[in-house]
Amino acid sequence: MTKSSTVNQECAAFKPQKLIQSERSNSRVDVDQINAFLESSPERRDQAQALIQEIVKDPILKTDSSMYDRSKREERAVTARKIARLALYMEHDIKTARKHFKGNDLIEDLQRDTESKLPALSNKDLSIFDRRLSLLHNIDPQLGTRVGVHLGLFGNCIKGNGTNEQIHYWLQERGSSFMKGIYGCFGMTELGHGSNVARLQTKATYNPDSDTFTLLTPNLPATKFWIGGAANSATHCSVYARLIVEGKDYGVKTFVVPLRNPETFQLLPGIAIGDIGHKMGRNGIDNGWIQFHNVVIPREYMLSRFTQVIPSKAPNGKATVKTQPQLDQISGYSALLSGRVNMVMDSFRFGSKFAIIGARYAVGRQQFAKPKQPETQLIDYPLHQYRVLPQIAVPYLVSPVAFKLMDQYYSILDELYKVSSPATFDKTGLAIVSKKLKNLFIDSASLKATNTWLVAELIDQLRQSCGGQGYSSYNAFGKGYDDWVVQCTWEGDNNILSLSSAKSILKKFAASRRGVFDRSLDSGSFDYLEPSFVRAVLTGQETASLRQLQDYTKVWAIALVKFLDHIARLIDVTKDLDSVAKLLVLVSKFHSLHSMLQAYYEKLKNPQDSHVTDAASEAALWDIYKLFSLYFIDKHSGEFQQFKVFTPDQISQTVQPKLLELLQKVRKSIIPLTDAFKLPDDMINAPIGYFDGDIYHNYFSEIIKQNPAEADGAGVPPNADLFTRLLARGSEFDHALGGSPRSEIIERLGK
Amino acid sequence: MTKSSTVNQECAAFKPQKLIQSERSNSRVDVDQINAFLESSPERRDQAQALIQEIVKDPILKTDSSMYDRSKREERAVTARKIARLALYMEHDIKTARKHFKGNDLIEDLQRDTESKLPALSNKDLSIFDRRLSLLHNIDPQLGTRVGVHLGLFGNCIKGNGTNEQIHYWLQERGSSFMKGIYGCFGMTELGHGSNVARLQTKATYNPDSDTFTLLTPNLPATKFWIGGAANSATHCSVYARLIVEGKDYGVKTFVVPLRNPETFQLLPGIAIGDIGHKMGRNGIDNGWIQFHNVVIPREYMLSRFTQVIPSKAPNGKATVKTQPQLDQISGYSALLSGRVNMVMDSFRFGSKFAIIGARYAVGRQQFAKPKQPETQLIDYPLHQYRVLPQIAVPYLVSPVAFKLMDQYYSILDELYKVSSPATFDKTGLAIVSKKLKNLFIDSASLKATNTWLVAELIDQLRQSCGGQGYSSYNAFGKGYDDWVVQCTWEGDNNILSLSSAKSILKKFAASRRGVFDRSLDSGSFDYLEPSFVRAVLTGQETASLRQLQDYTKVWAIALVKFLDHIARLIDVTKDLDSVAKLLVLVSKFHSLHSMLQAYYEKLKNPQDSHVTDAASEAALWDIYKLFSLYFIDKHSGEFQQFKVFTPDQISQTVQPKLLELLQKVRKSIIPLTDAFKLPDDMINAPIGYFDGDIYHNYFSEIIKQNPAEADGAGVPPNADLFTRLLARGSEFDHALGGSPRSEIIERLGK
Repeated sequence: MTKSSTVNQECAAFKPQKLIQSERSNSRVDVDQINAFLESSPERRDQAQALIQEIVKDPILKTDSSMYDRSKREERAVTARKIARLALYMEHDIKTARKHFKGNDLIEDLQRDTESKLPALSNKDLSIFDRRLSLLHNIDPQLGTRVGVHLGLFGNCIKGNGTNEQIHYWLQERGSSFMKGIYGCFGMTELGHGSNVARLQTKATYNPDSDTFTLLTPNLPATKFWIGGAANSATHCSVYARLIVEGKDYGVKTFVVPLRNPETFQLLPGIAIGDIGHKMGRNGIDNGWIQFHNVVIPREYMLSRFTQVIPSKAPNGKATVKTQPQLDQISGYSALLSGRVNMVMDSFRFGSKFAIIGARYAVGRQQFAKPKQPETQLIDYPLHQYRVLPQIAVPYLVSPVAFKLMDQYYSILDELYKVSSPATFDKTGLAIVSKKLKNLFIDSASLKATNTWLVAELIDQLRQSCGGQGYSSYNAFGKGYDDWVVQCTWEGDNNILSLSSAKSILKKFAASRRGVFDRSLDSGSFDYLEPSFVRAVLTGQETASLRQLQDYTKVWAIALVKFLDHIARLIDVTKDLDSVAKLLVLVSKFHSLHSMLQAYYEKLKNPQDSHVTDAASEAALWDIYKLFSLYFIDKHSGEFQQFKVFTPDQISQTVQPKLLELLQKVRKSIIPLTDAFKLPDDMINAPIGYFDGDIYHNYFSEIIKQNPAEADGAGVPPNADLFTRLLARGSEFDHALGGSPRSEIIERLGK
Repeated sequence: MTKSSTVNQECAAFKPQKLIQSERSNSRVDVDQINAFLESSPERRDQAQALIQEIVKDPILKTDSSMYDRSKREERAVTARKIARLALYMEHDIKTARKHFKGNDLIEDLQRDTESKLPALSNKDLSIFDRRLSLLHNIDPQLGTRVGVHLGLFGNCIKGNGTNEQIHYWLQERGSSFMKGIYGCFGMTELGHGSNVARLQTKATYNPDSDTFTLLTPNLPATKFWIGGAANSATHCSVYARLIVEGKDYGVKTFVVPLRNPETFQLLPGIAIGDIGHKMGRNGIDNGWIQFHNVVIPREYMLSRFTQVIPSKAPNGKATVKTQPQLDQISGYSALLSGRVNMVMDSFRFGSKFAIIGARYAVGRQQFAKPKQPETQLIDYPLHQYRVLPQIAVPYLVSPVAFKLMDQYYSILDELYKVSSPATFDKTGLAIVSKKLKNLFIDSASLKATNTWLVAELIDQLRQSCGGQGYSSYNAFGKGYDDWVVQCTWEGDNNILSLSSAKSILKKFAASRRGVFDRSLDSGSFDYLEPSFVRAVLTGQETASLRQLQDYTKVWAIALVKFLDHIARLIDVTKDLDSVAKLLVLVSKFHSLHSMLQAYYEKLKNPQDSHVTDAASEAALWDIYKLFSLYFIDKHSGEFQQFKVFTPDQISQTVQPKLLELLQKVRKSIIPLTDAFKLPDDMINAPIGYFDGDIYHNYFSEIIKQNPAEADGAGVPPNADLFTRLLARGSEFDHALGGSPRSEIIERLGK
């Protein structure tokens, strides 16, 4: 309510809160069941709700509208305090996972366990904290990133490339996994090389006489760049550098390099670091640049799971390098997988937040009236339904595939760790997990690119749907967009990821045309490449329709086959993969859309997987599924017609009318469908999106709170002197207060 | 150059400045001629260049990278100082236009000219300053807006709605047009009403006994909202309020209302003002909310060109209201025309800035190599060409239509002023100019919506094309996007504008089908509605091809006719205009794209209009034209196939191959084509986009300059204590400096 407003609290013109109450009273869907579907299970739903409450009630971790007015310096300070607070939660979450609260301090025990007598820290131990961090990323992306860089990038680089002893030492004993002892950053990107990791220029030259490496930044573009944590927080860095031994360049390997003395935070000798400066968003992250000028580290600081430097046994002999090239290449990139998988989950959470805001404003806001009617709610305009409802469908369709990808990721990594440990080494298993990893690379790249783009579009479209109020920082869209869009260029530029995943898909397609298809591995998201299906599509036996629920997924499979066939034919002629790159980017998008629909369909069709037994709720969920599919078929009607999946008349007479009809249907459940994300107001931080729907009072109150009248404008505003001088130059003011002019002027004005 | 870098100045890996020099040496096009084409004539080109130099060299008006780190408070102060500076330029520009520098002060004379003996201030007098302001908007959108609100919105509201005496008094005598005496803001939008101006709630009730109006804000949603200038700078407001006389509501009229005492800037009684607070962008604009609590103004403060309140002559008689409804309605909105016309011009200028940055980075940046080759320049990848070159074509295609629209606007407004002045009143002329105004509303609405959307997309795509460096504030994209996108929702929400223009176009189409078409008025941007052309398209006589230059415009005319026919048929059945709203929005976009291509074609085909005589330059300009048309045909291949303008095979075999071919061709001139915008580095303010192309040195230097090592990170970074405590909790540090570990650890690590 607007306490400081001077007007009557009753708004004769509008009562938006009544409109939203009415939507809820008329609702027939079960919000709790739908929330369980979205959170993947009732157990995860309950855990998410508990964690959300902890987050928004924590005095340090909570976020509110004051965040919109902070300077870069303030952002850094606030984020630093939050990191310190989070570290305490981490210890708590590990103890909770291991059910160990009494007796010795579990964390200290784990750190001191140099003989590895206790069970090593596993993904399961960290799963609660990972969920907490993922939920936190929803209200504070910069905090999520700063911690994610330390745990996910630095940590996973060591996990993926270190020997078991190195992993134990750096992550457990030195305390990194507990956010203690050392704080890491991820030294991959250089000013001159982002995507092309194989050409990084930082050098790590082996010194046989001291059994060490010397790190060197040989030129300006070799400067490590965009390194999150480097400017203010990191004590160590996992550096990607070229291994030079006896004059030979072995390519890019990984090294742990100390940057600062943790006790004083002074830079160590040979290390130069600076702040990258102001960014479009996420200014709470202290990105820095790093240069190494003859920095020396022991040989043992090279992460050596797959590549080892073997010192010569003879006094003047030569050191040698032993490597497992296949795994080395895979593991080099494995640190990046965690980021991509998390970004797909982020897309679900971040997208749902803005879906809620857009939905509630669309219901509360009225503009233009039919004769003798109250002004129409925005959500009752077909155009507004078209702009808003498909965006609400997006987080729904991200959820099942996000959880599926996350589960696949952890299970494959566990498998990789097992089959590549000396104690349990298994060559056959390694070959299998290698293939699974390759598929995971394709899927995670495609899904990361597609979903981060979808959410950038979602935030933009929903901001515009809120008109002028969308431009106010207090309604979350501005900072939301600015913080979000880096997801489209970091951790793999979206276009590069799309290209690489599509090229792999094209290869699988070519293999399929030769009859080669791995049913055990590729029957999931690549099932459309199964040879008999491909044949049926290309001979016209399998055609697109929209009669059954399964068809809404299958049309994308059909479109993919025809699309890939079109591209394959082009390349047959031109022999030039680059010339079809624009089409390949779309292939990746189609692959993702298909995967999302497939995962959603698979989950919803079985009540034991969907956790939805209520018929009305299930129907609403199927409507969302169909809406998503139709919306993107319409968006891509160009491709669907070009590759003859649908005819122009089918677009006009089937696709577009069905879409329009579905929009009207889904509109009815817009509020319960967004209530079902179960994000409290403290996580939304946008007054036009608060639960009670009292949009004008809530928004105006927020403005008054953030801009107290005394400071700005009520009496004499800032810079008033300057304006008085500006206006008074060379002539006198009309001194009559308020300009009640003299009679002769009045006379002239009245003519 | 990077003076403070500690590394060797020679970058062994990359020499981007050589790459850009090579592009310029190999160029065959005439940059000066192309610049004259873009600036619409050699005279305007020279004037633009002179004004640009004045702007970037002015110590107060110039902008540099320090702008990226400012707080909202600092932004406001800097912008206020710039306004004061600009006011001096305004006086200078008027004197220049009138060639009057000696003797009396011309501005004072104009102010004191109560008998209107001197020629009144005309658009011609203000044309130089308008151009200056337009160019300034390119580097400082918030400054452009703050001045534009006063001159363009407040000023044009008075010009469009005031009697000649009222115009003379407020704008000339009180000094408003010279940024003296009073500073205005535009009181139209309310919290509850943005698009639906007819339902604004602020009341202006006539008091017969004192011959005054009382202004009242009756409820919270009636609060004037988003009023630029209200919070800190405005002394007066042109308020849109409901005229209530003798209990009858006459609808929304306009009133001049004093807000503050200009000498002290204190709020006047009954006025409540507050700051709207932080925004996504343009925080230099002091948007405020305003409430009126029984504020009294003289009757003569109502702007009365078309509507007058006539006091009763008898002592207890009733006041009456006299109005010219047709013109009143048109003029009520005429203040908004100036904004829309200017936004189309802004789209040209703002778009060209980012086109330059994207082009230069694409040429300088290298990533991934073919075997034994240096790494490939981004611009040599077909995908990158696809991402960047069409965006460069956008400002090219905006330019001719922007200048054309601007000229039409001024000429129609002059005509309106003349035929509606009592001395030269002309009823027939009024009817004609009324129709011209309606067409102008359609064109300006469609072009404003389409071009502000195109440029939002341009900034986003080009930012992504610059990878990580695009996310750095210093490379202009972040603030550029944040400042730009409000253009899509203010001054007419883009979707609403698109709908209204498309509905008018649909009406003209229906009239055309009945044989009704005004050749004198509609043969410009509506020429595709000419009845015989429409017939030829619908009967299949006129078909789409891409053989001649003119075809690249005509395909859009053909598509529009088929599109409108499709919609008309749908409405015949459903009778529901709202259900086809999504299609109507596209009609507006197609109309604009057609207008842009048409204006470009008309201009380029005649050397005396294009000012291009060099054959290679002309060829390059035709390539841009074709590229723009093909790119959008491909983007809208869905509609082109759905409405059977092109077949699927034509898309595959003609449109897409031509597009690919043209991209490779235009790539060759990417640097001269962007050099031709002739924006100096001081106007670009993005080191990766500077003229010399030395991207790494320039960018790194900027970072060092804005983030001096001493302040952040080189020694002990901010919040270091907090991190030390975080990392040290409950355990000891490994005290060995840099963590050179003890031998037994080394032994374990080396296994």
